[in-house]
Formats: sequence, C-alpha cells, structure tokens
Amino acid sequence: MSILVVGSVAFDDVTSPSGSVKNVLAGAATYFSLAASYFTDVRVVAVVGDDFGPDQEKVFRDHRIDIRGVERANGKTFRWGGTYTDNLNEAQTDFTELNVFESFQPRIPKEYEDSDFLFLANIQPALQAAVRRKMSRARLTGCDTMNYWINRTPTELAETLKLVDVLLINDTEAKMLAHETNLPRAAQKVMAMGPKALVIKHGEYGATIFFREGAFGFGTHPFRAPALPIEEVKDPTGAGDSFAGGFMGYIASQQELNREVLKRAMFYGGVMGSFVVERFGPERLRSLTRDEIEARFQLFRELTHLE
Amino acid sequence: MSILVVGSVAFDDVTSPSGSVKNVLAGAATYFSLAASYFTDVRVVAVVGDDFGPDQEKVFRDHRIDIRGVERANGKTFRWGGTYTDNLNEAQTDFTELNVFESFQPRIPKEYEDSDFLFLANIQPALQAAVRRKMSRARLTGCDTMNYWINRTPTELAETLKLVDVLLINDTEAKMLAHETNLPRAAQKVMAMGPKALVIKHGEYGATIFFREGAFGFGTHPFRAPALPIEEVKDPTGAGDSFAGGFMGYIASQQELNREVLKRAMFYGGVMGSFVVERFGPERLRSLTRDEIEARFQLFRELTHLE
Repeated sequence: MSILVVGSVAFDDVTSPSGSVKNVLAGAATYFSLAASYFTDVRVVAVVGDDFGPDQEKVFRDHRIDIRGVERANGKTFRWGGTYTDNLNEAQTDFTELNVFESFQPRIPKEYEDSDFLFLANIQPALQAAVRRKMSRARLTGCDTMNYWINRTPTELAETLKLVDVLLINDTEAKMLAHETNLPRAAQKVMAMGPKALVIKHGEYGATIFFREGAFGFGTHPFRAPALPIEEVKDPTGAGDSFAGGFMGYIASQQELNREVLKRAMFYGGVMGSFVVERFGPERLRSLTRDEIEARFQLFRELTHLE
Repeated sequence: MSILVVGSVAFDDVTSPSGSVKNVLAGAATYFSLAASYFTDVRVVAVVGDDFGPDQEKVFRDHRIDIRGVERANGKTFRWGGTYTDNLNEAQTDFTELNVFESFQPRIPKEYEDSDFLFLANIQPALQAAVRRKMSRARLTGCDTMNYWINRTPTELAETLKLVDVLLINDTEAKMLAHETNLPRAAQKVMAMGPKALVIKHGEYGATIFFREGAFGFGTHPFRAPALPIEEVKDPTGAGDSFAGGFMGYIASQQELNREVLKRAMFYGGVMGSFVVERFGPERLRSLTRDEIEARFQLFRELTHLE
C-alpha cells in the first residue's frame, strides 16, 4: 500500500563528537520517506528551492519515492545547523534558515489522493489539519509535533490532534502537552485529546506505545520497544523521523491493522532509528538491504525476549 | 539456596508529591532482603542502634529473614531524610545521620559462612572487599556502589571490582566510573575492571545487563528488561535495592547459573522495583504473594514480547 508524508526537506550542517558535515540532504520528510521506502510505496509533499537539483532528486528516485508532490519554489531550501556535544539526545541549534519553507502551503497532487496511509511530519498544526481533512480516505494517520507548536499554537494543535490516529512525540513533549510529569498519566491525557494510540520516544531507551481502550484491540496495556545500545552514535539527527518511517512504513505493508502489527511496527521503528544514527545525515538509510533490517529486528528481539 | 546481604539498615523520613512519612524502617539491606525473601533464604549483616526493637525485628522475621548477623550497637540507627519533587528519579537529601553506621565493621557469623550467594550493598568499598574475601565459597557475588565512592575512594573500589561477578549501578554511575559518556563503551570499560556482567539501571526506562565475552554463556549481546510505566510512584526510595533483591534472589533460587537465568532475573528485578515504589518505604514488599509477583512478571513479558 502507499503512504503519503508531508513535511520538511532541508540541507543540514551537523557537528557531533564524531565529526561534522555540511549541506547534507535532510529534513523530516527525507528521513521518513527513505526509512519507509524499505517497506512500502512512499509519496512526498514538501517544498524545496533552486538549490535542490538532480543529485537530490536521485536520492529519492533510487528508492522509488514519488516526489511529484515536491514543490519547487524560488529561493533557497530550508537550512538547519546543529551541534551535538556529549548529550547526544539534544542538539544545540546553530542556525535555522526557513527560506522557502516559511511560506509552505502543502498542495496534494490529485494522484496522491488515494494514498492509504498518511504521515504528518512536524510542521505547523493548522497545515497538518488541512492536509488531514483533504486525505479523508487514509486508513490511518500518524502525526509528529514539537515543543514549539505545543507552546505557541495550542489551539491549532488541539484541532489537529482530534484528526489523527497515532501521535509520535518524545517524553518531554508528552509531559508538556499534558501538563503532567507522570508519563502514563500524561499518555492518558494526550489520548483523551484525540489520538487512539500514542508513541512516546525515549531516545536511547527506546519507545513506548500506549493504546486507548478498545483501539486496535482490547485492553490498555502499553508496549515497549527497545533501542539498541550503540557504541558509536555519529549523528542523532533524523532518528525520530526514521523511527516514524519504519513504524508507519511497516504498518502500511500489512493487510491487518491490529495491536500485534503496531507492536512489530514499534520494533521496525527502533530498527530504522538505530541504523540512521550510525552515519551522518541519512546516508545509512540509502544503502540498507531488507536482510540487514531483518537481522537487526532479530537483534532487537534477542535484546528483550526471554526464551 | 541462601544469600547473604551486607549493607545498611536505616530509618528514613521521605517526602514526595504523594505525601510524606517519618521513621520508616528502610536502608539497602532492608529493601534487598525483603525483595529477595520471596525467592530464597536471606541472611543479613548490618548494624542497628538502640532504637531498633521488636517491631523492626518482626518485619524481618515475618519473611523468615535471618538477622543473627545484625549487630546491636550503642547509639542510634542510621537515619536519612530525603525529598522528591517532580523528578522522581533523584532525591534531594535533607539530612544524613550515620550514627552507629559510621563505624560499621561487618562481622560474618560462623553460621553464614556457607551462604551460596553474596550481595554487597552500597557501603565503603574496602569493607565490601573484606567481606567478599571472607565469603570465598559464594557461587556469585553481586555488588552495588555509588557516586560518593567512585569519586572519593577509586583505588579501594577498583580492588573491590576485581572480586565481584555482577555490578549493579545506574547510568550516571557507570559513565562516571568509566570516564565515558557512551553507555555500551562505558559498560565494556567497567567490565574490564573485573565484573563478568554489569547491570545498568535506567530508572523508569528499565535496566540493561551487559555480559563479558564468555561469561555465563556465549556472545556479548546485552539484554534489556523494562520497567513498568506506573501511574503513581509514591516513593522511589529503595527501588534499586529491591531490583537487586529480586535479581539476586531469583538467581539464588535456580540450580543453573547461565544467561537465561540472568535474563529472567532482570525481569524479576524490575518486578520487585515496580512494586516497592507503589507505597512509601518497603511496605509493599511486606504483603506480596508469589502469585502477584508472577502476574506482574507476565505483565512485563506482555509489555515487551512480540507474538
């Protein structure tokens, strides 16, 4: 089946204890679509500038990612610079140049309207809601957001949350959104805002999915997927978006839509997140094989499963 | 089989967002022995003052814990006061009165010398080493320590680490001990100091066990046990010691000593840690049944296992 992602395409400058890179093709939609492309057909809606040329197109085309929805605007593509010091969980932003992304108005090509699944990467909540309303045929909608929107546009975000099925955020965002420091209680409050399931990402400690009673199956037991203890994290940028790509991509590859599928999707999310941080930018996502993905899935299983 | 724990018995004053208690029987040896008592015979070496009377003895005796090794000294028992605010992972210490614990010199009763397992709770490393040397018949020795000893007595601690099989510490302590911010690399460095296996506790995110190549089985794959997402953490004091009690207690209850046993022990550690925080002090550990423990073990399994 097919999945549509709406989000940012960017060029990043990244510095970490392992080195630094400049002008790397990045952005949430890039990480997401590369990760998801190992599981299903991916379509992208984004905006880029004049500096997005055949080299960048090739990155997507090599993975049969449909970029007919990537709008070319006059000006430069979104650029971001960040530095990671010892705490690899959090980047210090060196600069943000929104450029053509500042006036991004997602336009869904006619050919995308039959997409089976939808992922709203981290953009302004009102835009997310508008896209969601247009994509009424989507079987399941995933959504990301961030502190900035939680603080600045709570009303718009509340509207968006009513329209999505699964929200993927991190611990800090969940607690901030719910005004609640206890994680399971925060999860309940967030799901009361709309999502049927909530994925809370814990960085190097993995991620937990919480289910609303009756959603995708019975009961309210959460499920936790690990992250792999990785000896060298070169660049954590895009780990969350790659997690989302593995998670949503796996779901889109399955006929059924139940808890067992969502649990396995959590593992595939962790797998894709664990790969991407091994290199700078999305490089590692460009050369994976399905065998490598399955082997790491088994590693995740061995890491957590009792005989 | 039997396990000997050497550590502190204390009276605690604790304040958390859920309330406060005063003069609660606590201390690492108390939490450890109560948790371990559900799995195996426990013997305690500790020191208490005149304020330790029949009511306190009863807490141990109700669990058939052997306290012949608990020395009665003139003066008051160790007292600690702490406050938890929103960050339940870390207590602010309000006061520490070492009292009779200040000059604690562990004396092992003759009847304890045949103990099959040994746990060195968090006390001065030189005392831990002395106990370990005396208990040469122990099949496996577990050990805890803390920042204070890592910083103040690194030489003594290094000597102790050569003598223990499994060290149980938290993320911060592991990184500090190894002078290394990456967790898997820190784990390798710590194991190079002596322990064959290292349990790193991640608070609300569970715990990971790392194995030295060839120790307790083949390979170097770590194993991660979850913590239960708990809606109301009343008092996190003793969670680590209760984890250690469940972990070591389960190991002591098994005939075999291999990786599968250690992995299951990680789950039982998490189970006991998850129970204790539900009430102030060790209260929850006083009234458990083996059925409740097994039911929660199943909950941990459901939380992490794919079909």
